Amino acid sequence: MNSGPSDDIEALITTMARLPGLGPRSARRIVLHLIRKRAGQMAQLASLLAGVAESARECLTCGNVTQSDICPICQDPARANGEICVVTDVADLWALERGRAFKGRYHVLGGSLSALDEIGPEDLRIPQLIARIADEHVTEVILALAATVEGQTTAHYIAEALEPSGVTVTGLAQGVPIGGELDYLDDGTITAALRARRKI
Amino acid sequence: MNSGPSDDIEALITTMARLPGLGPRSARRIVLHLIRKRAGQMAQLASLLAGVAESARECLTCGNVTQSDICPICQDPARANGEICVVTDVADLWALERGRAFKGRYHVLGGSLSALDEIGPEDLRIPQLIARIADEHVTEVILALAATVEGQTTAHYIAEALEPSGVTVTGLAQGVPIGGELDYLDDGTITAALRARRKI
Repeated sequence: MNSGPSDDIEALITTMARLPGLGPRSARRIVLHLIRKRAGQMAQLASLLAGVAESARECLTCGNVTQSDICPICQDPARANGEICVVTDVADLWALERGRAFKGRYHVLGGSLSALDEIGPEDLRIPQLIARIADEHVTEVILALAATVEGQTTAHYIAEALEPSGVTVTGLAQGVPIGGELDYLDDGTITAALRARRKI
Repeated sequence: MNSGPSDDIEALITTMARLPGLGPRSARRIVLHLIRKRAGQMAQLASLLAGVAESARECLTCGNVTQSDICPICQDPARANGEICVVTDVADLWALERGRAFKGRYHVLGGSLSALDEIGPEDLRIPQLIARIADEHVTEVILALAATVEGQTTAHYIAEALEPSGVTVTGLAQGVPIGGELDYLDDGTITAALRARRKI
């Protein structure tokens, strides 16, 4: 008879192993770590998870993660400056907020267009974006999408879809990242940075 | 004003990022994944965690993770065959149980001896092991410890400590792992396998 982990621990490991970036081995390691410190961390993690599972939802306007129907950014009148920054994912929105450089509002697509995975414009909150252009007196849409094939395909699609509205559509600059050494950059980035060179 | 994740989501990410193998970036990714599927996975994970936090404890005899004071292996009379397998961690015990080759009982040390981290014999359930030798009529102690400096230091210490009891102390064989190609093995393993060569 195999006397491995008990059923409830096995179920916990299996559920953890399904999370992105984890597998059976790292899930086992985390669960054993939690059991060892269970008085503190495990109960805390359980109650935090239950709390967020109860309260977290998508902002009806922009798709941000929030605790109310409309997220704090969409509710803040100071951020209605006519600019909408389009991002793939909420993690990208958080990254931009950490930078504190953008003062407008966001629109979270929830993914990238992909013929292979059968993800079309309707799956990506693109119709909602087009509707917001008229409703919110938007003057500029900034496409802050990944510099990958999927990201750029999505950017081109959105730029074309927004053309009739007359709104200005811009994209993030491409070039050498801050702290980046030329020697470690790929050829595409160096070429893009050279093409977009500017007077100092 | 920075409008990143809300306070409860931030607390969840911070707690997750402290787990072994995870950091702020992978914790954010997991939390966003859970929020997206929250109806299912998140509440399930929360209740599984709460359940295990409530029920899991250490076996008073061997240190295995269990739901009662004494684990199923220590309660099973069929496993009182006079053999005790000493392992560093419960994960090692589970690995041995998956192999189904060992029919005796276990003793979980809970770590390795380390002068650097100030981990001595008293921190490792070694006194409890010595006490079990007499109580349970043990004939053989198998040291299934890691083939690392810390693991082998611990093995030597235990072998010496058990010498007065007269019990047989053995260690796992070292050699070429099943499926291993010589070309990819380190020199130490090849040397050990050659020294311990046997007639076919």
